[in-house]
Amino acid sequence: MDDAPNYAAIAHVGVMEPNAISLGMNKIHYTNKGIMANKTFSINIPSTKQVKETDYCGIVSGRNKSKADVFKTFFGKPKTAPMIEDCSINMECKLIKTINFPNHDIFIGKIAATYCDEVVLTEGVVDFEKVQPILFVMNDRSYWSLGKKLAVAWSVGKELDK
Amino acid sequence: MDDAPNYAAIAHVGVMEPNAISLGMNKIHYTNKGIMANKTFSINIPSTKQVKETDYCGIVSGRNKSKADVFKTFFGKPKTAPMIEDCSINMECKLIKTINFPNHDIFIGKIAATYCDEVVLTEGVVDFEKVQPILFVMNDRSYWSLGKKLAVAWSVGKELDK
Repeated sequence: MDDAPNYAAIAHVGVMEPNAISLGMNKIHYTNKGIMANKTFSINIPSTKQVKETDYCGIVSGRNKSKADVFKTFFGKPKTAPMIEDCSINMECKLIKTINFPNHDIFIGKIAATYCDEVVLTEGVVDFEKVQPILFVMNDRSYWSLGKKLAVAWSVGKELDK
Repeated sequence: MDDAPNYAAIAHVGVMEPNAISLGMNKIHYTNKGIMANKTFSINIPSTKQVKETDYCGIVSGRNKSKADVFKTFFGKPKTAPMIEDCSINMECKLIKTINFPNHDIFIGKIAATYCDEVVLTEGVVDFEKVQPILFVMNDRSYWSLGKKLAVAWSVGKELDK
């Protein structure tokens, strides 16, 4: 299975800079080995319609069972960063730094390319109302949808600036 | 103003491990200086009711204007990590690592203590339906609410495990 595409559901993620992303992955995971070997990975944003497939990827380890057929895979430039056709947003990442935490490897990737389905764009910008991302809450271990747009940033607070 | 409580709206955050959090803060910000000097900071989760105050903290720099009176402040153990009474969740953090990115300082903090308003708990666990957090989308610079609970994690995908 070592050469097959592998997918994992990641709970601990972060944004470092606008084009650098972190994954905090418990060292017990099979996927860590692949990222360390290939120095590439992809980030795939599943929609609420894919909640079962996403959760399945978090339940089953690639060590025991291939997850290559859960999604239809495509590749960009590096042939070691499989991406998911049914995800409206996929990001190809180059590993630039690994931080060794007690129980987790923190993989920091620079986004080399972003693949975006045109159907989720509004006037050329990603519209999260169309993406319908899955949000994860660790406290009660649950998946949530995105709600409503409340306000425009760097704008709604101006009225308090006296 | 250097000794006054200061608050900032942070766009780039991340979870490293369950008790370690990252802040990706552009080096131009005044707040970076305070975190570096004090080696402590707090994370405060505003609710959708505080969207104006939160945005205001992202518009105005503490370099030019004190933000000490935007919120009612309280302190835990370290007197250098002001927290917000009106936020249902506040986390006191100890700076454990700084990563130097081209335009951003990445501050990684270990959570030393979490202060949680009992009104947002359901059976002793933080209930995000009660927290009503503000979600931030960078693409179109907007604030969003949390939607509905879709499914239970490590559970809903089991039916695909054949």
